[in-house]
Amino acid sequence: MAVLTDSEVQQALASLSGWQRNGKAIQRIFEFPDFKAAMEFVNKIADAAEQANHHPDIDIRYNKVTMALISHDSGGVTQRDVRMAERINQIAG
Amino acid sequence: MAVLTDSEVQQALASLSGWQRNGKAIQRIFEFPDFKAAMEFVNKIADAAEQANHHPDIDIRYNKVTMALISHDSGGVTQRDVRMAERINQIAG
Repeated sequence: MAVLTDSEVQQALASLSGWQRNGKAIQRIFEFPDFKAAMEFVNKIADAAEQANHHPDIDIRYNKVTMALISHDSGGVTQRDVRMAERINQIAG
Repeated sequence: MAVLTDSEVQQALASLSGWQRNGKAIQRIFEFPDFKAAMEFVNKIADAAEQANHHPDIDIRYNKVTMALISHDSGGVTQRDVRMAERINQIAG
């Protein structure tokens, strides 16, 4: 799948609430009341990632969860990442 | 709780299979056959962390999980971290 150009990524980010570019990836940090709530969110995302067969990098810091998306096989952000970011935002509500 | 000295940390690491010093923390990287197995492990650790009220930093990279422990309130590695690392190793089996 084709890596998006910088301007294509910027365009995609414009409609991806909370997501930012971070190096070659895109990422969003989610904050929850506590660790338990953070883990519930992580498990919902894990299910969606398995369904899509596209897995974000997930960093858990107590009540803060960073989700990062990149298509490692393509070496950058692709439409797969954008779709997964949209799905993650849907789940986050 | 008292921060362990460098030599105390080294002594603790000697009996903590797979754990290494990383900056002010101690960490171990666990590898699994796939993402699903990695998430099952993460959830077991999450339960143990809630029970102990001591939460590792958890980084998930598909089938690789990095667990890092530091007592943020003390500013370094304490016996709480060593105990949690032991518990994580027990769960990893």
